[in-house]
Amino acid sequence: MKNIRRTVYRIMETSAGNRRGVSLLFNVVLITIITLNAIAIVLHTVPAYNRQYARLFYDFELFSVVFFTIEYALRAWVCVENDRYQHPFWGRVKYLLSASAIIDLLAILPFYVTLFATDLAIVRILRLFRIFRLFRVSRYSHAYRMILQVVRDKKEELILSLTMVGFMLIIISSVMYYVEHPAQPTVFSSIPATMWWGINAMATVGYGDIHPITPLGKLLAGLSAVLGIALFALPTGILVSGFTEHIRYQKAPRRCPHCGKELS
Amino acid sequence: MKNIRRTVYRIMETSAGNRRGVSLLFNVVLITIITLNAIAIVLHTVPAYNRQYARLFYDFELFSVVFFTIEYALRAWVCVENDRYQHPFWGRVKYLLSASAIIDLLAILPFYVTLFATDLAIVRILRLFRIFRLFRVSRYSHAYRMILQVVRDKKEELILSLTMVGFMLIIISSVMYYVEHPAQPTVFSSIPATMWWGINAMATVGYGDIHPITPLGKLLAGLSAVLGIALFALPTGILVSGFTEHIRYQKAPRRCPHCGKELS
Amino acid sequence: MKNIRRTVYRIMETSAGNRRGVSLLFNVVLITIITLNAIAIVLHTVPAYNRQYARLFYDFELFSVVFFTIEYALRAWVCVENDRYQHPFWGRVKYLLSASAIIDLLAILPFYVTLFATDLAIVRILRLFRIFRLFRVSRYSHAYRMILQVVRDKKEELILSLTMVGFMLIIISSVMYYVEHPAQPTVFSSIPATMWWGINAMATVGYGDIHPITPLGKLLAGLSAVLGIALFALPTGILVSGFTEHIRYQKAPRRCPHCGKELS
Amino acid sequence: MKNIRRTVYRIMETSAGNRRGVSLLFNVVLITIITLNAIAIVLHTVPAYNRQYARLFYDFELFSVVFFTIEYALRAWVCVENDRYQHPFWGRVKYLLSASAIIDLLAILPFYVTLFATDLAIVRILRLFRIFRLFRVSRYSHAYRMILQVVRDKKEELILSLTMVGFMLIIISSVMYYVEHPAQPTVFSSIPATMWWGINAMATVGYGDIHPITPLGKLLAGLSAVLGIALFALPTGILVSGFTEHIRYQKAPRRCPHCGKELS
Repeated sequence: MKNIRRTVYRIMETSAGNRRGVSLLFNVVLITIITLNAIAIVLHTVPAYNRQYARLFYDFELFSVVFFTIEYALRAWVCVENDRYQHPFWGRVKYLLSASAIIDLLAILPFYVTLFATDLAIVRILRLFRIFRLFRVSRYSHAYRMILQVVRDKKEELILSLTMVGFMLIIISSVMYYVEHPAQPTVFSSIPATMWWGINAMATVGYGDIHPITPLGKLLAGLSAVLGIALFALPTGILVSGFTEHIRYQKAPRRCPHCGKELS
Repeated sequence: MKNIRRTVYRIMETSAGNRRGVSLLFNVVLITIITLNAIAIVLHTVPAYNRQYARLFYDFELFSVVFFTIEYALRAWVCVENDRYQHPFWGRVKYLLSASAIIDLLAILPFYVTLFATDLAIVRILRLFRIFRLFRVSRYSHAYRMILQVVRDKKEELILSLTMVGFMLIIISSVMYYVEHPAQPTVFSSIPATMWWGINAMATVGYGDIHPITPLGKLLAGLSAVLGIALFALPTGILVSGFTEHIRYQKAPRRCPHCGKELS
Repeated sequence: MKNIRRTVYRIMETSAGNRRGVSLLFNVVLITIITLNAIAIVLHTVPAYNRQYARLFYDFELFSVVFFTIEYALRAWVCVENDRYQHPFWGRVKYLLSASAIIDLLAILPFYVTLFATDLAIVRILRLFRIFRLFRVSRYSHAYRMILQVVRDKKEELILSLTMVGFMLIIISSVMYYVEHPAQPTVFSSIPATMWWGINAMATVGYGDIHPITPLGKLLAGLSAVLGIALFALPTGILVSGFTEHIRYQKAPRRCPHCGKELS
Repeated sequence: MKNIRRTVYRIMETSAGNRRGVSLLFNVVLITIITLNAIAIVLHTVPAYNRQYARLFYDFELFSVVFFTIEYALRAWVCVENDRYQHPFWGRVKYLLSASAIIDLLAILPFYVTLFATDLAIVRILRLFRIFRLFRVSRYSHAYRMILQVVRDKKEELILSLTMVGFMLIIISSVMYYVEHPAQPTVFSSIPATMWWGINAMATVGYGDIHPITPLGKLLAGLSAVLGIALFALPTGILVSGFTEHIRYQKAPRRCPHCGKELS
């Protein structure tokens, strides 16, 4: 029994170093199902497809949930093979409370709840949770891990620059509200409404649904554009430099110019 | 009496090096009240909240002004403990004319004036000054000090690049006005009106309220896009590089874990 | 005969090192005809020009096809002079299956097919292929080769960053769909429709045809703006750095005018 | 007479090293008049100001032209003091054909022509030339000289990247035209009309007057966004890096790491 458990563990875990044969097959199947789920979630909302392939969508949903449930049960069974979750009971509890296990659970649980739910509003909200199936790819996605890593590395700079963006946004939007409200009382109806203008002006999106029309408002928008765009460009710049550093160091490890040894 | 003044000074001033106990408590309370003021100023303009919580907004306003007034008086009393404002009379005058003391005053003064003002227009304008309460956070905000520092460091480059943006903006807008005015006399009604197009084209905002429709105007907009965007990107680039330099120098220099020498 | 073939080869091939006299003339003529074709393809779609100069467009089309056909035949004849296509038969087959020969063929073939086609729909589609004449300039365009080279150099980074953009796009659009669909069922009609919003929000284009109107949707758009823009800025940054590296390495290294040593 | 000429030359030329006393006064007066002209040109187009201050605008126009004419004549008289224009006749001809002398002439000539012109259309076009008075500031503007210098330094890179942008623009717009024309025949009416979409999509402006509505068109717009934006960001990046290098080298001259001597 223990041997079977170990084999199953080795097949399921990509980090277990076994990337060939049955393990590779299992993981390719899993990623394919997740990708198909992503496509299903996206296309499911197109009325034409939804009507025509309603049966197919439902069958695939059923299949996915069954597959993910078996997978979830197996992972809970074999997780004790991992050194971090060794204890037969507390190890499993610890595993089930880990971020990736909770994501796995949230990807299947809503389906079972909808079977018993009678309130349509709740069913609709629970369907939202299917988005968590997309996050399941994070187990394999190098890109996803990289985002997390970069955000962690640049945490301080990001918080600082986002604070500046927020501070600037409130100041600019407050002044703009008092300038434009008398001219456009329904558009610049309140400071929160004006902040929608502010965030789009700073991000240079400009949907055109809200913009100043008074000369003073336009002057203010012009003046705040340079400072606002620069501040908004800051978190962008930090993330971009974080990603490029990350990519560069993965290619060729950095070395100390004094002793020549590798730096982490 | 002098001992009490010194104690009060140490509690109020974060720069006095005492960041524990009563001093920490006082400053946390102050920042909380400023933040609540920011939220109140923003939400106060939403008609629904304003109607429903009018009493709460007014009470909080009253409480804030009383609190800030006492704080303002205490600061004026204890400021002589600071070496820069030692003289009992001239030191206090010098302190009261400092930037942060004037911001503190502008945050409370309008309230008292509105009590005696009978003209509603003046009352409305005076309410604007409540935005200065947001700037009060500058005493504590690392982000705010950083903006000031970076602008000061890069003063020359910023002036130079903003001159270029302004020069380019006038040239592009003047030419565009003569090209588009005959086709859209009400939209491109004057060069100042065209400058509103110019600043948004250079910042790539594009609200859609003003854009060329003649082939020549579109060609001109296309040609000026590259140069204009590049020039507008310049102050952005200067500020971003200023911020990143600032952040880097504040962090402790990284050292090689093998030989202990500093890494550039 | 072999001497003539060699001479023709030397005239036609720019890479044969002969960039003077008849060879230069031939290549200038060829680039001129390609450029005129580009202008014709673009102006041909303007109804006013198309009606007025229909005869001229047709004659130029006929002339271009005849010229390109002769050129195509000549190139197929002389290609064996190139070491890579030495074999009289298999060398020519190999040449005709090369990317640039296929582009050359696609630039002329549709014209001949349209002569015999009776179905107007097919004729219209075949006309599309004239765009391949633009790609013919790639034989000479340094810019075109540089794009290919940079994309090849930065392949891994580009795939990784585009994966991140795609992943983020699906997540943001899925959540936005569930938030905005009830408020704007015809605009945010499905997740694919919302992805059109998503890609434009991340690229900060903002046409104004689709944007959130609910407070929660606006908040979500604001929050996702920073992360989305940063992720979208990543492939841009990678390509830009790729181009600048490419340009720098192609320039001769700068030398110190005093000691003659290379400067980094 | 020659002494007077030398004195006048020294007063007028900022490059003559004499930046004090009368010379400083003269140049400050000149820059003030040019700046006032800029303001007059901009405000002159605002109907309200134009009606109210018609007399003032005309008087200032007259004064400016007289002042600039005297200045032009004086410069033509004293230019022979400059070593480059020494010959009494050919030196003056050479000076009058220099870029700055032609700009000076274009700033005044139209006024004299309008005095004799009877055709209103010609008068209107001639008024356009007043914009050249803005360029007169280039004699003094450090920013203007810097733009020219940077464009000259980065000439090759700019041409190369603009070629790429142009190439990409034609390809993207041609394909988009064939995709969107059947769905929006009046909006995507021709390839040149689609290029207006293309340049705005690549510059992320998005006025909202033209955008794809078919699924294929939207997909194409999304795909071309990344590549297009990256290519359009290239000339921006080149200019920005050119400016920052320029600014940096002006602050601290670069030195050769081998011999320590200053590099130009």
